[in-house]
Amino acid sequence: MTKLATFTDAKGTRLGAVLEDGRMLDLATAANGALAAQVTDMLTLIEAGPAALAAVRALAAAPPPGAVLPAGGWRLLAPIPRPRRNVFCVGRNYMDHVAEGDRTRGITSSELPKYPQFFTKAPDTVIGPDELIPPHTNTTQWLDYEVELAVIIGREGADISAEDALSHVFGWTIGNDVTGRDLQRRYGQWFKGKSLDRSCPLGPWIIPAEELDALNTGIRCYVNGEKRQDSHTSKMIFDVKEIIRQLSIGFTLKPGDVIISGTPEGVGYAMQPPRTLKPGDVIRCEIDGIGTLTNTVQPA
Amino acid sequence: MTKLATFTDAKGTRLGAVLEDGRMLDLATAANGALAAQVTDMLTLIEAGPAALAAVRALAAAPPPGAVLPAGGWRLLAPIPRPRRNVFCVGRNYMDHVAEGDRTRGITSSELPKYPQFFTKAPDTVIGPDELIPPHTNTTQWLDYEVELAVIIGREGADISAEDALSHVFGWTIGNDVTGRDLQRRYGQWFKGKSLDRSCPLGPWIIPAEELDALNTGIRCYVNGEKRQDSHTSKMIFDVKEIIRQLSIGFTLKPGDVIISGTPEGVGYAMQPPRTLKPGDVIRCEIDGIGTLTNTVQPA
Repeated sequence: MTKLATFTDAKGTRLGAVLEDGRMLDLATAANGALAAQVTDMLTLIEAGPAALAAVRALAAAPPPGAVLPAGGWRLLAPIPRPRRNVFCVGRNYMDHVAEGDRTRGITSSELPKYPQFFTKAPDTVIGPDELIPPHTNTTQWLDYEVELAVIIGREGADISAEDALSHVFGWTIGNDVTGRDLQRRYGQWFKGKSLDRSCPLGPWIIPAEELDALNTGIRCYVNGEKRQDSHTSKMIFDVKEIIRQLSIGFTLKPGDVIISGTPEGVGYAMQPPRTLKPGDVIRCEIDGIGTLTNTVQPA
Repeated sequence: MTKLATFTDAKGTRLGAVLEDGRMLDLATAANGALAAQVTDMLTLIEAGPAALAAVRALAAAPPPGAVLPAGGWRLLAPIPRPRRNVFCVGRNYMDHVAEGDRTRGITSSELPKYPQFFTKAPDTVIGPDELIPPHTNTTQWLDYEVELAVIIGREGADISAEDALSHVFGWTIGNDVTGRDLQRRYGQWFKGKSLDRSCPLGPWIIPAEELDALNTGIRCYVNGEKRQDSHTSKMIFDVKEIIRQLSIGFTLKPGDVIISGTPEGVGYAMQPPRTLKPGDVIRCEIDGIGTLTNTVQPA
């Protein structure tokens, strides 16, 4: 499994691959020739296309010893620290999450959404693994978590068919769609409640699309060690192929675009009684085959 | 009135000021010293702050003859050709537009929205004056226009008060929030219907905030010369100050952000019978004190 990461240390921020033993292959050191200019950052690598990715995977499979950094001397950032445009999001995309949301409004018989509900989070909401989420205490009474499979687009396209969709995917990572529930409801359109500062943890790294069947894998979220969400990406109402098909209708997807694909049941506001994130809470998002993404709500 | 423009000619794309006689002050030629590096493009000028803007206004008021280009040898682009993140939008922000929208759904007694409805359009939807809007014939049956006052943010801030809000505004321009009405309704969240490729004409230039009381000015839209929208920005339900206050709650606005502030009544889908934009239609948006923004739907 190739773990493509953006990391930082005393020498600056650059691209690497996390090895199975936890050390970091520093691609700025490992890459020679034309590849060196293609691994300056994740967006450049994505735009460089399949040959560059193949070369990076080969390096990660047989890392040159002089380019490997010991664990602990560097820190992961979000794999794409600052997307070029808003993160695309899908709401209400797991049936049991639709049902739990409906129950909070007194609706006991839920209908399947007929179309995916697309909204966005500003690019500057993205933070990396282990970074702090602001409690937004003065802004929301209901800060909530949402583990989601994040899709990284690799190849430009509009009006993409479902059968071609996966050929436009560069890779997979984990997103946490941190939400101010009261704002989400109050404003009707979800942007306001979904785009609070630093409300989009993303990471820990990108797994290349061809290395994981991300449409069939386990997805879970824990708060302070307590399991809150536990589902499977195969339960999406609109799977990744259908999300890409519908999002790209009359709209050009670009390399480096990030799509978070909806969250399963188990969010805090639908619990009985409802529970909100509090300062100091530790949220661990897991997707089998990708890894874990852990963030703490900034302690008081 | 200073008309800050992004223009292009055989020498490339750069920043200028359109003079009252229609000629262009080429700021790349006119600016000396430190200012030269601050006028490379609109986002750089905005980030350079009030002193740079004052210097540009002074140049535009007394243009060095050697830096003035005759009319006709250049072409305007959108003043910010590619915003760094999605364009922020406000829905249902004029009461008569709320009412006409409600009527299309059989609602005859409209309520004032309690909160502004924020959504976004991707940065790549932005096009400039006189550029073609795709008809999106295979995507939507109801392509529609919406003239809107566009607000350009000049100074970073979060949790901005209404009384401080205008001090965060760099300037004003015109936006046309081209919309696929059927998609807007079908997808529930408005992003999908609002973010079709090339669906955000913006321009023709930016008027510095202090030169126009944009909260009290006339706003109109014509299709093929027929007046369709005719209102006044003072009729906004949430004025620009309140939009900035609410959008910035827990969310940092940045220099160069673009906010389009809602459209008045008179959109095509609410007409009796409803009317859709067709290939060849010419849409002219006007705001008094700014100018006109004209775009044609690409002819068949």
